[in-house]
Formats: sequence, C-alpha cells, structure tokens
Amino acid sequence: MERRIGLLGGGQLGQMLCEAANPLGAKIWVLDAAGSPAKQINARTSHVDGSFTDPEKIRELAGQVDILTVEIEHVDTYVLEEIAERGVEVTSADGSKRMKTVEVQPSWKTIRTIQDKYLQKDHLTRSGVKTAVSMAVEGSDLEAVGRECTKDAYDGRGNYPVKSPADISDALEALAGKSLYAEKWANFRLELAVMVVKTENDTSDCGRSTIAYSVVETVHEDSVCKLVYAPPRDVSIIVQNEAQDLARKAVGSFPGKGVFGVELFLLPDGELLLVPQDDPLREAHISLMHVIGQLIVNEIAPRPHNSGHWTIEGCPTMSQFKSQLLAILGLMPSFPNSTIPAMFPATVMLNILGGKTQASHNKLMNMAIAIPAAALHMYGKDSKPGRKIGHITVVGSSSSEAEALIAPLITAADDIRAERKGLQRTASIPSSPVSAARPLVAVTMGSDSDLPVLKPGLALLTTLGIPFHVTITSAHRTPQRMTDFANSASLKGFKVIIAAAGGAAHLPGMIAASTPLPVIGVPVKGSTLDGMDSLLSIVQMPRGVPVATVAINNSVNAALLAARILGAHDGAIQQRLVEYAATMGEEVVGKAARLEDVGFEGY
Amino acid sequence: MERRIGLLGGGQLGQMLCEAANPLGAKIWVLDAAGSPAKQINARTSHVDGSFTDPEKIRELAGQVDILTVEIEHVDTYVLEEIAERGVEVTSADGSKRMKTVEVQPSWKTIRTIQDKYLQKDHLTRSGVKTAVSMAVEGSDLEAVGRECTKDAYDGRGNYPVKSPADISDALEALAGKSLYAEKWANFRLELAVMVVKTENDTSDCGRSTIAYSVVETVHEDSVCKLVYAPPRDVSIIVQNEAQDLARKAVGSFPGKGVFGVELFLLPDGELLLVPQDDPLREAHISLMHVIGQLIVNEIAPRPHNSGHWTIEGCPTMSQFKSQLLAILGLMPSFPNSTIPAMFPATVMLNILGGKTQASHNKLMNMAIAIPAAALHMYGKDSKPGRKIGHITVVGSSSSEAEALIAPLITAADDIRAERKGLQRTASIPSSPVSAARPLVAVTMGSDSDLPVLKPGLALLTTLGIPFHVTITSAHRTPQRMTDFANSASLKGFKVIIAAAGGAAHLPGMIAASTPLPVIGVPVKGSTLDGMDSLLSIVQMPRGVPVATVAINNSVNAALLAARILGAHDGAIQQRLVEYAATMGEEVVGKAARLEDVGFEGY
Repeated sequence: MERRIGLLGGGQLGQMLCEAANPLGAKIWVLDAAGSPAKQINARTSHVDGSFTDPEKIRELAGQVDILTVEIEHVDTYVLEEIAERGVEVTSADGSKRMKTVEVQPSWKTIRTIQDKYLQKDHLTRSGVKTAVSMAVEGSDLEAVGRECTKDAYDGRGNYPVKSPADISDALEALAGKSLYAEKWANFRLELAVMVVKTENDTSDCGRSTIAYSVVETVHEDSVCKLVYAPPRDVSIIVQNEAQDLARKAVGSFPGKGVFGVELFLLPDGELLLVPQDDPLREAHISLMHVIGQLIVNEIAPRPHNSGHWTIEGCPTMSQFKSQLLAILGLMPSFPNSTIPAMFPATVMLNILGGKTQASHNKLMNMAIAIPAAALHMYGKDSKPGRKIGHITVVGSSSSEAEALIAPLITAADDIRAERKGLQRTASIPSSPVSAARPLVAVTMGSDSDLPVLKPGLALLTTLGIPFHVTITSAHRTPQRMTDFANSASLKGFKVIIAAAGGAAHLPGMIAASTPLPVIGVPVKGSTLDGMDSLLSIVQMPRGVPVATVAINNSVNAALLAARILGAHDGAIQQRLVEYAATMGEEVVGKAARLEDVGFEGY
Repeated sequence: MERRIGLLGGGQLGQMLCEAANPLGAKIWVLDAAGSPAKQINARTSHVDGSFTDPEKIRELAGQVDILTVEIEHVDTYVLEEIAERGVEVTSADGSKRMKTVEVQPSWKTIRTIQDKYLQKDHLTRSGVKTAVSMAVEGSDLEAVGRECTKDAYDGRGNYPVKSPADISDALEALAGKSLYAEKWANFRLELAVMVVKTENDTSDCGRSTIAYSVVETVHEDSVCKLVYAPPRDVSIIVQNEAQDLARKAVGSFPGKGVFGVELFLLPDGELLLVPQDDPLREAHISLMHVIGQLIVNEIAPRPHNSGHWTIEGCPTMSQFKSQLLAILGLMPSFPNSTIPAMFPATVMLNILGGKTQASHNKLMNMAIAIPAAALHMYGKDSKPGRKIGHITVVGSSSSEAEALIAPLITAADDIRAERKGLQRTASIPSSPVSAARPLVAVTMGSDSDLPVLKPGLALLTTLGIPFHVTITSAHRTPQRMTDFANSASLKGFKVIIAAAGGAAHLPGMIAASTPLPVIGVPVKGSTLDGMDSLLSIVQMPRGVPVATVAINNSVNAALLAARILGAHDGAIQQRLVEYAATMGEEVVGKAARLEDVGFEGY
C-alpha cells in the first residue's frame, strides 16, 4: 500500500473507491472540484482542485502520485499517453527538475478505444466478441437504423433512439456536428452485466488475466440504470456462465489493469421455447452452441460501474472497488475458476434519482433505513431532478426474499419519478407489485390420474413456502413436450424437478436424460404389482442418468427431498425443515404419552 | 439524518462510526486531536481540535450539534450532565446568546456509572445481573483477592492481577493514590461477548428497548483482545441464547440509547458435556436453570466495542456502528426475537497490534489482502509496540472454513508479538496450514465391504472436481457415531450426503432422520435376494424422512445426483454435468457408428 494513487474524477464512483481504500491504508489523491463526493470522505491526502479534463491539472496530480486511474472514461487520453509514455516533470527539493514515471491504469489505449463507441465495437468484433451489428455512417444516412451514439456517449447521453424514419431529422439536429455511427436496435429480451477484473497488462491470455464477478440483470428506465438483480431473475446458470466467459473474453482483449463493467444483451431467440415445433432446424436451435450465440456485448466501461455496486454488500470482503485498487496495485489474489462468487444468494440494487425537490427522496431513504437487510448509500451530492444521488442494496437469503424486500422501495422510487415527470400515479395501477414468487420446483406427472398421489406433496411445498409449478408431460403420449419441458427447465430457473409416474414409469428417467437438474421420481402404485413395476422402472436407471427415487406413492417425501435440496443453499428453507422435523418428533412424543396414559387397549 | 452528531473521541471506533455515517448521509463533528483517525475519513464537517477531556472543547462541540455521543467512556460526565440538563450557550447570528438543548446518548448517568467499575458492578448486582463477586476494599486490605481495578480502568489499564500475597505490595505501588476495589479472580473457561443495542431512554422494559447481536467468543492475550469468534467455537445454542438474554437484561438496566459491549464469563461448570454419564444429578446439571447460573457479566462498555468489529462484514447491512447511529437518532428498526442475526455462518476477527518496528505488521497486512474472504481494516494510526492499529475479519461458510482462513494470520500475528517481546519462536511449530478445498459431499457406508461399490462414484466426484469426505458409520455397530455424523453434517458445511448400505440397509434412512440435508441412498447388492432387500430398505422410507434412492450398486448415479444437487446453485458444476452428458452421448454415437460400420456380427 506504499504506492500513491491518483484518481481522475471525484464523483460517487471515486467516493466508493476511497471508502474501499481507507481501511486498506491505500491513499488516493483526487482531481475534481473542491468538496466533490470522493473528497468528502478522504482527508488523508492533499487533493487537486480542478477539472479532470484539464491537462495541467492532470499533470499536477500525476506529479504527486505513482499510479493514475479514472472513475470516468471521458478524459483526455492524449495527456494520459504523454504521462504514461514520457512521465511527468517534477521539481525536487533542491529545485532541480526531473521526469518521474507514472503508471496509468487501465492503459490510455484502452480508455481511448472505449470512449469512442464505434472504435470500441470495432475492437470487440476484431477480437471475436459478438456485439450489436454496427456500421459507420456518414451525414444523414440513417435510414433503416435505430440507434446512434457519439464518441462522448455516456449513460445515455449522446445517444438518440431512431425508432422510425420520422425521428431522423430530430436525431441529426440533436447530435449536430458530431461524428456519428448507427447500430441496429437490438430487440433484446434482457440486459445482463458482468464486472470483470483484469490483473495483467497484456492481452495474450484472458484466462490468466481476467476474473469475473457473478452475472447480474440490469433494468433501465428513461435510459438510466434503475435496478440490478444479482443473480438475474430468469436466466439459466449455463447462460450465466457463458455471459461470464464472453465478458472475460471482451475485457481480456484490452491492455491494462483494473475493473471493467461489461453490459450484455440476451437476445429473444435465446428463449428456446419460442422455436416453433415444426422448425426443421429445431434441434440445432436447442443445441448449446446456439444458446451461446444469443449473448452479445452492448458496451464496456473501463472502471467501476453502477452494475457492480451490489458487490459492496454482496461480496463484503471483495467489492468491485477493492478489486479496482488491488488490480491496479498488482495485488489481486487469484480465484478458482476465475470467478468471484457472490457471498449471498441474492442481492438487489435500486438507484436513487433526484426528484422534483430536495426533499423528494427523503421517504425512500427512511424506508431503506427501516429495513435491516438494506444498505443505504447517499453520495453527498446535491439533489437535481433525475440525478443519481444514491443507491440502496438489499440482501436476501433467496431471490424471492430480496425481491420482496425491494418491492416497496421500487414503489417509492416510482413515486419520485412520477412527481418529477408530472405523471399521474393512480391508486388503481399497482406500483411494481411483488412478483409472485418465482417457482423453484417443477412438478410433473405422466397422467392426471397421478395427481391424487402428488397432492399431499404439493400441500407440503405450500406449507414450507416453496413456490412450485405443476404440469402434465407424458413420456409416451407427449414425448416432444416432455423433452422440451426437461430441456428448458434449468433455463427457466427451476432448481429441482419432481416427476411422478406409474407402471412402465419412464417419465422421471426420460426427464433426467434431458436436464442437468436433480430429478426426484415418485413411483405411483398401479392396479397390478403393488407399485413394484413403477418403483423398479424409476430407480433402476443406467449409469450416467440418476433419478432420486422415493418410496411408492410418497409425494410427501418427494416434497421434503426437494426442500432439502433447496435448503442446502437456503438457510431459511433449511430452518423450516428443522422446525418440521421437530414438530413431527413432538407428534410422536405426544402419541407416546397418550398411549402410555390410556394404555394400548384404550388407544 | 437532519440531526447533527457530535462525537467525543476520534480513534478507530470513531473512524468506523464515520465510515457507517458517511453513506447514510449522517454528519458527525469529532472532538479529538487534528488528524485523528475519525477525522482522516470525514471532511464533511468542521471538527473541533482538542482533547475530549477538555470541558471547554466539549462545550464548543456541543454548540455545533444536536446530539452528543462518545467512543470512549473516560470522559468528564459532569460536563455532559451540565450540557444534557441545562443545554449549552450559543451565540446567534445577531450576537445574542441563548441556551441550546443538546441530547447526550447514552445518558451521562450511564457513562458515570460504567466508568467506575465498582459502581458498575454494584448497579448490575442491584439490577439482578450476576457479576464476578465484588467487594469494596480499603487501603491494603487485599489478602485473598486477585484482581483490582481503578475507576479509569480501560482495556486492562489500571488493573493489577494479584495471584499471590507476594504481588500485593507491587499492586499497591502500581495503583498508588487511586481508590481501589478488588474482585475474586473468575476462574473462567471462556470469555463471551454480546453487543446490545438500546433503543429507548427508560429502563422499565428491557424486552422492548434492547436488541442483541449474536454471541461471540473473545480470546485475550497480554490483557488485550486478540481474537473474536462469531459464533463461539464450542458453546451450545442454549447457552448463547442465555448469554443474549443476560446481556440484554444488563444493558436494559442503564438509561439512554446506543450500542453497548457486554463481556461475559462462561464458568467451568457450564461445560455440560464434562458431566459424567453416571452422575446421579446429570439431568439436573443439564437443566436450563443451571446453565443460566454459569454465565456472569464481567463488564460493560457504553459504546461500540472491539468484540463487535466482526459485524462490519458479518452483518454487512447492520454493523454495530450503523446500529449506534440509528439508536441514538431514534431510527433503529425492530427485529424478530429482539436479535440481530449474523448474516454469515462464521466470522473471525484478529486484531493487529503494532510490532517492534513500523514495518513489523506489513507481512500480516499483505497476507490479509491475499485472502478474498478477508477484510483488512487499518486505522491510520502510527504503529507503536502493542498498540491496536488495525484488524482483520475473515468470513466463512462454516466455522471450520473461517478458522482455516484465519490460522496463518494468527501465526503471523504471533510472530509480530514474539519479535516485540523478544520471544523465541521455533520453526518446529507448524504455522497452521491452510486446509484443502472444503468438502461439499459427505460419503459414508455401513461397512468397508461397501467401498468397492462406491469407488466408481468417488472417482467420478474427483473427475467433476467436487471435494468430498469419505468415512464409515454403521447404523447397527456404531449407532452413536452415525447420529453424531448426521447431526453435525450441516454445521460442518456439507451440502449433500451419500450413504451406501446392504441387506437390512438402515444407514441412509437413519442419517436422513438426523439431518436436514439431502441424503442419497445407494443400495448395495448382498449375497442373497439380488439387492432387493437393500433397495426396499432404503427407498421405502416413511412419510417425513426422504432418502433419494438410486439403482442397486450404482454409485456413479449417486455421484451424478450429488453433482446435480450442487449444480442447481453452482453454474460451474452444472456446466461440467452438461459436458459429461454430451461426452456420454458422443460415446453412444461412436459405438453406433462402429456397430453400423463393422456390422453386429463383427462388433
């Protein structure tokens, strides 16, 4: 922690970087206006007051530090190039002048490429990373395109959405005098983001030099990030892994060290279930390669990013800000599988945007303070309408818990927005209702005649507060439907499947053959053989395809097994199971007492 | 967050209070020397430079704020009384003078009582809280006692341990001129501590006004706190609950609001497991009332406390410092059961004490930075031998994991101490090796004769990169060992259990009866009945206790099922399963091609 760090920009990202640096004993000199957020909480150094776009001020800052980094990419990269390549002139104690070496991280080359969205996408395409289809455009050649960005685009600034040819003249007026490029409007289903830490300067081996945080889902409103869900709400783990790999590949292609925010789109045809039944290429669509193909990179930020704020509480010993410091100082530890796992099952982050008045957000702040699992982060900025002035992160032991915690806060944020924009918020429109809990268990059966056997298990899942989805998929009468169900179950966010069948009971095994999820088989007793046919058909699976078989007709145990599987990673569910077992034990003890009391004849 | 807070003392406790206040938008004015730790990270207010024992400076601080609090109890409570009861004189803009009301939290009465250890223990005893036996002593009447404290005792300062009559004259010399009291040396087994938040001024209803954090175990060395374990390493949940109740009762007896650190002793006869099996009073020993009797309060601090630093990462949305702010501001939310649960299964905190030189602790700092699950907190203080200059907290998904993480750091801290004290540290003492990957799957069998059946499954777990632990627990020959194994499996961090048995195969079901984890049963084929006995013994479990049964002798499927269960929450494992299934499919396709190629006769 001996090396002195200089930071261009002292906004909230710089502030949270200083919050991470203070306890590490790392010292940061900030270049920004006096009293800027980062300076408010860092009185350890003699900051430089001024603009982070002023070359003289940048040189003054560089003279005081050993390493320069940025909290914003819209900086003068030619000054950074000069400092990185030739050093900066400093005056020694004896009055003599000398050139001092200063490291710039991430590389000025990376910042220069990324700050121009066209160059950024061109670089990514040449590095083999899929992005939204891009093309350079000249003058007014904007027909048939739908989105423009200028080189100083940032958080929606400098973009103009062209949704029909009628928008073009407005767009050209709004962006007059800037060099333009257009890209096809990505008709995306979901926006994902991944924070990636780059730990080596070179770009030769992304596997060695990049580490990915967990994937998050981002929700934008008015072209500004509103919500971040970690993990995403309905994205399979396989797609999440591919998103991490793609983000690491993208970041690995840029020289220099530091954290990078990678925004991705998950395109609609990633939704396998939308592929028509009679599509001759259906099998190919469903193949893994195709799933990978649905993810594209939208854009990259060479710095800590709003989509990574959840890490402050979600990874409390390894936030994106700590990673930024350790990466640029060359102190980042290595991680198994090159990933930094979230330390809680679920976190959700909500931005606080300034409302109509300075007091508009007070109610939202107070609501956040009243929630023990919520962390409030106010940036110490004056509130202006629409300005990011803080954020709230809630932590849950499950996604449904985190979503329930954030729901009333979203409503309060929606109220601030409605007041700011003069929108009516009628009481009849439910404001972002708590979504029905996402089902974790898929329950299916070969025939509706199996339903009576399943009902006690379904009742128990309800009692245990475990959301589930029930359907019918017959192995022999609807083989394709069954396979579709199995193939898509993981993608839909299910964690466990329960399948009940009787006789030549193929359903559980066939489902297990088409999903990586754990499948619980319930043998249903038929009219002959006392259920032994069902039991053996389900349990005696060949090596390679397991079915977790429970006793004949015992859907209660199937439900409990599903709960145990979920409870292995969800303390709240495991606690309910412990209580269930205790109640069951007490019942037996109660019966024993009664039996001992009245005697076996009277019982 | 409108109310301005004044803080007496700007050391590390004040610094961490400011760290909590900054993101909440709460503003703190600090009274302490210029450049003190709290001031280093809080440039939002105009602090007061001076001593927190200087009445004039305290009044100057009070004039600027709405509420006064302390980070140290050794303050002038007569000035606090004057300010709380009569207000402080301030000069208005027009030059006129007026008295301003300032709230003091916790109450000056509480601080006055607590800062004198004799008054503190007398107060606790009169409030019905057990403490170490105390007695006022005069002059040299110190025979038969073993510990003294003066009213400015703090973190061991002002104490003199008298272990034999020969120590008495030294003690009197060391404590000359002070009013003394002596207490019986508590021959304690364990030191516990509980942070308690008091949310109401009055003392009438501790159930309504106090909230307890989880109990921790503290380890002292050289009369200074060295380690804090949350939860304690070997203390039953029942004792922990009683410790929380006792701590809440103790804190509830003091007027005012804020967090309090309560240090407790767990006396030796609290060790229930050491009560001999044949002790006729064994049942009585184990009774709850007796357990309560073993816990006594040592002392109380009316402020954030070293034993609560673990909450910064252990309760990342509700640290002791955030609680202190919310409590004194009257904004503390309520908690079920009046407890603030830890948000991780285990955390351990290690203090960093200054070594022989300014650089002595560098190695320890670097080791902490290299551990992703460790958080380093340096206080920005000059290092002096034995001075608390920082701390490290590690977070684990189990106690064993957290203890393995902290072990090498303890060794490094021991090295600093040895160098400081000129002690020999022989190389032959191994420095707490870091354990291998934490096993996720526990594999057990009824007899070593089952091992050949399990081996293919164990090989597959290895291939899939899933760490596991193998043992033997016979239901019929080692019933207690089996139950202990099952009872402790979840606590040890296992997520899934695989149990193999043959014949009257009770092992999987009996294990399932004593754990909330998912249990996979592998029926082992015996010499008779073709394994049907084993299969039915395992699969036909009664309602309430599920066993996930796989095919007879099919340990490969047991391993794959365990992997699917883990993979439901671990994308890397699920990805490996998808690849495994693809490889398996390719093998079949390869065999099909060969069969078609060479014909069925030649195959």
